[in-house]
Amino acid sequence: MKGISILGSTGSIGIQALDVVRCNGGEFRIAALAAGSNVSLVESQIREFCPDLVSVSNEKAFVELRGLLRDYSGPTKIFCGAEGLEAASKADFADIVVGALPGSVGLRPAFWTLAAKKDLALATKEVLVLAGKSFMDAVQASKITLTPVDSEQSAIFQCLEGNRRHVVKRILLTASGGPFLRKSIEEMALVTRDETLRHPRWKMGPKVTVDSATLMNKGLEVIETRWLFGVEADNIEVVIHPESLVHSMVEFGDGSILAQIGATDMKIPISYALGFPNRMCSGTKPIDFSSISPFTFERPDTNKFPLLKAAYDALNENETVSPVILNAADEVAVDMFLNGRIPFHQISTICLDAMNSISCKNLNSLDDIELFHDEVSEIVRSKWIGRN
Amino acid sequence: MKGISILGSTGSIGIQALDVVRCNGGEFRIAALAAGSNVSLVESQIREFCPDLVSVSNEKAFVELRGLLRDYSGPTKIFCGAEGLEAASKADFADIVVGALPGSVGLRPAFWTLAAKKDLALATKEVLVLAGKSFMDAVQASKITLTPVDSEQSAIFQCLEGNRRHVVKRILLTASGGPFLRKSIEEMALVTRDETLRHPRWKMGPKVTVDSATLMNKGLEVIETRWLFGVEADNIEVVIHPESLVHSMVEFGDGSILAQIGATDMKIPISYALGFPNRMCSGTKPIDFSSISPFTFERPDTNKFPLLKAAYDALNENETVSPVILNAADEVAVDMFLNGRIPFHQISTICLDAMNSISCKNLNSLDDIELFHDEVSEIVRSKWIGRN
Repeated sequence: MKGISILGSTGSIGIQALDVVRCNGGEFRIAALAAGSNVSLVESQIREFCPDLVSVSNEKAFVELRGLLRDYSGPTKIFCGAEGLEAASKADFADIVVGALPGSVGLRPAFWTLAAKKDLALATKEVLVLAGKSFMDAVQASKITLTPVDSEQSAIFQCLEGNRRHVVKRILLTASGGPFLRKSIEEMALVTRDETLRHPRWKMGPKVTVDSATLMNKGLEVIETRWLFGVEADNIEVVIHPESLVHSMVEFGDGSILAQIGATDMKIPISYALGFPNRMCSGTKPIDFSSISPFTFERPDTNKFPLLKAAYDALNENETVSPVILNAADEVAVDMFLNGRIPFHQISTICLDAMNSISCKNLNSLDDIELFHDEVSEIVRSKWIGRN
Repeated sequence: MKGISILGSTGSIGIQALDVVRCNGGEFRIAALAAGSNVSLVESQIREFCPDLVSVSNEKAFVELRGLLRDYSGPTKIFCGAEGLEAASKADFADIVVGALPGSVGLRPAFWTLAAKKDLALATKEVLVLAGKSFMDAVQASKITLTPVDSEQSAIFQCLEGNRRHVVKRILLTASGGPFLRKSIEEMALVTRDETLRHPRWKMGPKVTVDSATLMNKGLEVIETRWLFGVEADNIEVVIHPESLVHSMVEFGDGSILAQIGATDMKIPISYALGFPNRMCSGTKPIDFSSISPFTFERPDTNKFPLLKAAYDALNENETVSPVILNAADEVAVDMFLNGRIPFHQISTICLDAMNSISCKNLNSLDDIELFHDEVSEIVRSKWIGRN
């Protein structure tokens, strides 16, 4: 039985990871869960999985959760804050940690997990965007197994299995194109928050759903791919594939392309990441090729989606620093959009402005990265919140 | 430098294998060539590649070739007939043999190659159709590396690399559907030899082109797949994919599907088979996903293409014997069609009649198989040639 710790257990990935655990009864036990402040969901997860350890985001959630669990007699120790998150990242009985915390908050726990020599199933793309080089160096040094929990990165990983000795000519990173693929630039200026949150293919958290609408999400994945698979930006090509059935492809030196195809269901990459090197039950329905819609492919329009190009520019400018600026600006801009402070099209304006106006710094440690991330966020926030 | 022997050097696969050798200058040397009676082509191949050994089909071709090579001072020894074919299958300086002889004539040389402990890049599907079980047993026993030279089987092989330990749920064998995919049964009764030989996607020899039009070729590939990958017929699903860009797919127990995609160019599977475990130059153009036509998929119509169903029936009835009947009947029927003796729709009539009327026999040796194959051919020939 594999022990699992899930960081971000009440988020979309965490919930589906627990579905996969249920579907593979007897294969896993939950060692630890870390969540934010959705206390009632954590409560039910504790009652079902009886983990050794649970952490919630803060004191308030901690007190609330303790209250809800008055009658619970299981073995679970409850923690909160950074201390709790660190405990969950290093939990004694965890063989593998699912890193599914949203955004930059997931950065340090990923490193804690490596330090504790646990395998890591990584969903938080910010870990690679903010600290790709030092993180991959640490993965190498720790000799743990890193598996990606992302449909695209999992697809690439699966296509590379058995092909790691071959030269990769191109990684073809597929993108659904998001909800605004067929809108003009003029129409995109008028889209609402609700329209933006209605993704045609994937049900995800709000930040990544907005990022999918701007294609910033695909841009962040380009950066993620660059580090995860050691491929130069020039060899990563984004292909719009609205049906979201081909989850990505790898082209080798002989012109042969391997593609991973599957239902639009995160449980496939989650189960792959948890079971690796085995494949196990994902609980998804098989694809019926006799009634499947045609697979279409097209080139992304970087005029309409400038943040995709910005990700390439960030890699070309200063691949360890510029992505931090782009990511921090995007976090602030998306938050402003979700709070109704700016229209949709201003997300890219804000990010591009940050890229142009904020200078790179030497980032020599995780502290440096976090400080610079906060600094950029503060610059962007003060510049744009004043204006709106 | 790998030594190669090419059995069938003047056929479509042989010619393209030599293209791959040219494209990878210095990687290979030609140890032997075996051809039929296209003497002028063999002559130019000899002058270019200076093999140690060449075999042509018969005495007449032998004499003719010797005449053409009067001024040639290279090291090439010339043979003919079965003796020459055996010498080419076992050539001293060959590390790998390309088995690309057309039809049942390729059967025995494949076993000779195994006996000589040479790796085998196998294009002749009849080897697996006629003697799948004993051939795969012999491959296991000889410990050589068998690589398929067929776009579909190569695709499956590539999808399984790195996944051999996993349960295969389905093999999705793709089929272009051939030239008559959109014709009705009534229209198919009227098609001509020329229409039949105009395959929409692949340029191949006449026998396999006709088999592609009846989908018998796909049926033979179902049988081939059953043996090559040890998968039951129930787990092999034929999917019509007219664009012929997805060359086949493998679905694993977790619902994840790997597909191999590439240009419609045999040089990709040929170079893969020759270079394995490395990938090398195939000389094909990369696919441009920004201008590619949609990939469509549909279920094959077994009323229109009864020979596809016949292949499944053969596997279900008596998997080591019924395919011999089906294959022999098809060889005779296609030959009669190519010679203008029967209309297109009668190919399937003849094959189905043979399946229904000829009894299975115990086949305990290669001799038994060849004798039974000839016996079936004779029964079918005498029954139908009399009638037309």
